[in-house]
Amino acid sequence: MNFASDNAVGVAPEILAAIAAANAGGALAYGNDAVTRRVEQRFAELFEHDVAVFLVPTGTAANALAIAHLAPPWGAVLCHSEAHIATDECGAPEFFGGGIKLIGLPGEACKIAPATLEAVLAQGQWGGPHHVSPAVLSLSQATEAGTIYRPAEVRALAEVAHARGLSVHMDGARLANALARLAVSPAEATWKVGVDVLSFGATKGGALAAEAVLFFEPTRAAGMQERRKRAGHLVSKHRFVAAQMEAFLADDLWLRLARHANAMADRLDKGLTAAGYAPAWPVEANEVFVALPQEICERLQQAGASFYPWTSDSLPKGRTPRDDSIMIRLVCSFATAVVDVDRFLATVKCG
Amino acid sequence: MNFASDNAVGVAPEILAAIAAANAGGALAYGNDAVTRRVEQRFAELFEHDVAVFLVPTGTAANALAIAHLAPPWGAVLCHSEAHIATDECGAPEFFGGGIKLIGLPGEACKIAPATLEAVLAQGQWGGPHHVSPAVLSLSQATEAGTIYRPAEVRALAEVAHARGLSVHMDGARLANALARLAVSPAEATWKVGVDVLSFGATKGGALAAEAVLFFEPTRAAGMQERRKRAGHLVSKHRFVAAQMEAFLADDLWLRLARHANAMADRLDKGLTAAGYAPAWPVEANEVFVALPQEICERLQQAGASFYPWTSDSLPKGRTPRDDSIMIRLVCSFATAVVDVDRFLATVKCG
Amino acid sequence: MNFASDNAVGVAPEILAAIAAANAGGALAYGNDAVTRRVEQRFAELFEHDVAVFLVPTGTAANALAIAHLAPPWGAVLCHSEAHIATDECGAPEFFGGGIKLIGLPGEACKIAPATLEAVLAQGQWGGPHHVSPAVLSLSQATEAGTIYRPAEVRALAEVAHARGLSVHMDGARLANALARLAVSPAEATWKVGVDVLSFGATKGGALAAEAVLFFEPTRAAGMQERRKRAGHLVSKHRFVAAQMEAFLADDLWLRLARHANAMADRLDKGLTAAGYAPAWPVEANEVFVALPQEICERLQQAGASFYPWTSDSLPKGRTPRDDSIMIRLVCSFATAVVDVDRFLATVKCG
Amino acid sequence: MNFASDNAVGVAPEILAAIAAANAGGALAYGNDAVTRRVEQRFAELFEHDVAVFLVPTGTAANALAIAHLAPPWGAVLCHSEAHIATDECGAPEFFGGGIKLIGLPGEACKIAPATLEAVLAQGQWGGPHHVSPAVLSLSQATEAGTIYRPAEVRALAEVAHARGLSVHMDGARLANALARLAVSPAEATWKVGVDVLSFGATKGGALAAEAVLFFEPTRAAGMQERRKRAGHLVSKHRFVAAQMEAFLADDLWLRLARHANAMADRLDKGLTAAGYAPAWPVEANEVFVALPQEICERLQQAGASFYPWTSDSLPKGRTPRDDSIMIRLVCSFATAVVDVDRFLATVKCG
Repeated sequence: MNFASDNAVGVAPEILAAIAAANAGGALAYGNDAVTRRVEQRFAELFEHDVAVFLVPTGTAANALAIAHLAPPWGAVLCHSEAHIATDECGAPEFFGGGIKLIGLPGEACKIAPATLEAVLAQGQWGGPHHVSPAVLSLSQATEAGTIYRPAEVRALAEVAHARGLSVHMDGARLANALARLAVSPAEATWKVGVDVLSFGATKGGALAAEAVLFFEPTRAAGMQERRKRAGHLVSKHRFVAAQMEAFLADDLWLRLARHANAMADRLDKGLTAAGYAPAWPVEANEVFVALPQEICERLQQAGASFYPWTSDSLPKGRTPRDDSIMIRLVCSFATAVVDVDRFLATVKCG
Repeated sequence: MNFASDNAVGVAPEILAAIAAANAGGALAYGNDAVTRRVEQRFAELFEHDVAVFLVPTGTAANALAIAHLAPPWGAVLCHSEAHIATDECGAPEFFGGGIKLIGLPGEACKIAPATLEAVLAQGQWGGPHHVSPAVLSLSQATEAGTIYRPAEVRALAEVAHARGLSVHMDGARLANALARLAVSPAEATWKVGVDVLSFGATKGGALAAEAVLFFEPTRAAGMQERRKRAGHLVSKHRFVAAQMEAFLADDLWLRLARHANAMADRLDKGLTAAGYAPAWPVEANEVFVALPQEICERLQQAGASFYPWTSDSLPKGRTPRDDSIMIRLVCSFATAVVDVDRFLATVKCG
Repeated sequence: MNFASDNAVGVAPEILAAIAAANAGGALAYGNDAVTRRVEQRFAELFEHDVAVFLVPTGTAANALAIAHLAPPWGAVLCHSEAHIATDECGAPEFFGGGIKLIGLPGEACKIAPATLEAVLAQGQWGGPHHVSPAVLSLSQATEAGTIYRPAEVRALAEVAHARGLSVHMDGARLANALARLAVSPAEATWKVGVDVLSFGATKGGALAAEAVLFFEPTRAAGMQERRKRAGHLVSKHRFVAAQMEAFLADDLWLRLARHANAMADRLDKGLTAAGYAPAWPVEANEVFVALPQEICERLQQAGASFYPWTSDSLPKGRTPRDDSIMIRLVCSFATAVVDVDRFLATVKCG
Repeated sequence: MNFASDNAVGVAPEILAAIAAANAGGALAYGNDAVTRRVEQRFAELFEHDVAVFLVPTGTAANALAIAHLAPPWGAVLCHSEAHIATDECGAPEFFGGGIKLIGLPGEACKIAPATLEAVLAQGQWGGPHHVSPAVLSLSQATEAGTIYRPAEVRALAEVAHARGLSVHMDGARLANALARLAVSPAEATWKVGVDVLSFGATKGGALAAEAVLFFEPTRAAGMQERRKRAGHLVSKHRFVAAQMEAFLADDLWLRLARHANAMADRLDKGLTAAGYAPAWPVEANEVFVALPQEICERLQQAGASFYPWTSDSLPKGRTPRDDSIMIRLVCSFATAVVDVDRFLATVKCG
């Protein structure tokens, strides 16, 4: 009953097999190999667009490299105040960006509303030369609350951003989960609605360590390979990162794995709601956030369930957990078993 | 006949198996897992010393993180002018270190002589506040010339460095090859002769992507975990990096693999010398540098051999390649086959 | 009627004279001169404590250098959300600090309440290694709202900070104004209540370009001279910066100038209150913030008054300016004339 | 007999008077004042070209800001190995540039020969992504050896640089001395021969603290005002920096002061040569480098002369000082008196 993190599970068998398969024979190092070329081409097909692709081993690297490439050192990056880049990367974007500033915006369910973005851009003091200049809007898809932006929402936000000269970055560490839910193509969820640069995650979805930064306007990627190298993120035996991504993208594996994770979250949602513990936010990806009485939490832990407590300023009004309750986060993954979900729910119900 | 790079080969079977084995069950992310704990303990045993261990996916990351942790931003890092950190990492140490300065020192066979270090420290303008302050001596073991420092040489250099307040870093991307040659223990080659912080490489030796930074005085590592995280080098599914390292260190695999690579280099050395093409420097690790007539180089390439041309300012006097010759680098690895070496040598000889 | 900024006035005659006097003869450059030595001694006497003194030409430099010296790159600097370092220095602390993160705290009248600080430190996610580590508490004295911290308030904040291992920095760009108001010694307002490092401002008070960073524990200043130099803030003809500071500190000039500025602000306060326009916050230093009907603002500008509109999230409850009003900032300086204040007030009253 | 530094003298009377004159009345801060506008216009006239002008208080700031604006963080800055930016700024360019790398080139008399530049660019490993990319050629005019580049030499170097995509920066801390010697206009010595960005020095020439960064293609200066501000180099009472520069440029004061300094250096040159101590390099600006017997150096110091010993790797062949000699640097300034020069020479001659 491991619901602690989608990083706590292992590697999908198909991806492990691809790593082993890539071990046959030699290959030029540092990305000058055939697998890397195929992955680049696959991304272009998948997104129906020219893309410049940069594979890296971690999501923090993908985000920080992407943002640093889009913002000058005096740039401001607008994101939700609970975004991963703002709270969980130990200042990586600030480091990579030479001292950029992240501006956290409020928003229910960890989503930024276009009106909020508009107001911040209108009212704040920007540029000139005393103030930092808004440079990047970074959106998490899915969000830290397990919610997702609809394409029209992304479009509305991107329009506000582009009108003010900001680039739009999407932290897609869980893009697979979002796309598995939305009935739209990768293109429709990204560049067609204004995303300029995408961190495309595979690790949480089932890879060992593989993420990609995609530039939908490849000319904007000039210098990015140097930036990646000097950050230590050009993996020498690069074909093994590429092989993970190739397997992840092959035959819609990425979507199949995400669909399973989402389905497990739905099952939790349904069971918890039925038990009188409706999740705090709509369950739209692979995460469930729910306030449970303390005694239930203890019972779950005794039963072997693992999960993290959670706090958020993005709860709907009136949804603050009661004093005797604890808000917890339950993360499902490609490896979450139905039996574990059901045992979890059973433990919640019959104390 | 791939002699291009030890990064061009794949992963040793034992290490690939360890990755697969680590996939059983869940594990806490970010290094809070049992495999990582075991690796830390194994390093302490291997080096007969308390160590603080930080696993990262690339050698550039290991070096840059280590150096940045040892030098203030106004620090100077003294290294051989052809050291990997100085020439092949696209300024990673400078980036990680907030604008530190690398000072390249000359030295035959890519080795720094203690007298050279002493002279640079004595004659240069340092500190005060107009000049950068010498902070780190970084030694490559084995060197970029495929040569190795003897423990007494490291000790002599470290004594000069420590007397001036510098820390001693060793770039051990090929430490296995050096130790396989020297009849000394890991401790005798590192902290016992003054190395403070070690980049311990496994990738070139046979891992997929696994390097370690070792602090022999663990208190000096305070803050290092934050530094690694914000550089994007804390791998989320950390057990898979740890599993590589565990397999590399188990049953002396690392030394066995390195011994094979060295033996293949020796075989090249012997064959080339017999053919009248003695290598430029003593062959002490897994690399051979030799000047060959251009026609032989072309013949080799036609026969399917891959290697890189090389230039160096560290050649012994009188060893500059003749105009009709090309200096090339031949790198052997754990995967180099005797048959490939012999075919290479045969191709050299009978044109 | 220039109430736009205390940077908009010139240089106090005594300071101008000191610059001219310093021009007699030669002097070693870069701070190795007699005037600099005297200023260092004078600061030690004035603050009744050993101090390490670093003179720089701008307040932004003083703040950014001080903060960067106190915080590691993964450090968080807690300050009021409207502090000058957070809003008006174009990311200087982030740049100097290698990508540190500023955390803005709310607080009425631009003052941080100890309970707020305590709550942020208790509730936030800090360190470990995913989150930045709280490293510095920075207090503005006087604040951006023209209010001042009482020594007991600073002490209470410093105790919370020190208990969590944070250093306490004070941005004293207007410390003279604060001290001119408080009946306490410089020591009682700073190190005796827990301030570790002080940006001591002279420019706004009447100098041409002279600020000082004071370390009350001089050993903590190791490396600071290198940091200043590589930031381009070691002025070559240093005696001219020192001479300004010497004149500023001589015969309590700094306090006399500040008292005048404060008195002019008091006069504005009294007159505006009498006219029915009580300032938004208590007038405690040399700044007055007041909401005036738009027509009065226009009348003032036509009469030649200069001032800036102002917005703040730190207004007392119920003090949000009405729609037909504009909140403005009026800054008095050593050079503000009574006649200008009175003319301003007369213009307000008789429309 | 102060020949230690042109920073050791004071401020030219005309400039001191201008500072005092600028003190009349108020002025908008941060460069929004009339004096600054006039200086910008004056520079455009003087250089017969559109220029974007950024005034800063120190030469290190001017150089580091200029270079950081021209080079990406992975850029290499090629300069003479003894250039001020490489040896005397404590790593300022590296800090401002986010970890750029300075590559020191050899060259007699501290001048880079076009063939040397060409060879370094042709032979070095650059870009791609393992190596830093050559981004800026920085030339010192006058050089650290007191020599000057002729316009044709600058043009030849700039052509090599531009052909490879490098920008050309000139460190003109002593440009006045160079131009006072050359019979060419400011334009002919800078943009007409390929200089893209110029650090125009006034401090060594007679100002208190005033330098300018000039972009001859103003569009390239986008973002420079933010860069300056966040480095703490936007002086608040900016008109006082502008007033210094205005006075320096008025009525050719800058050239008159430089001519005097140069003439004093010539007088030293002539006298020393007559005494059998010909300077090491041609005396072309305001500095004289000469090897003197140790006993003469001691005699000079006893007589009250101040100067620094000097070492250089740029001496002409065969000019290494003998063991009983010391190479010293003698710097003349606008304030150097004929009587001091003559007394110095007399002390050299009659021991």
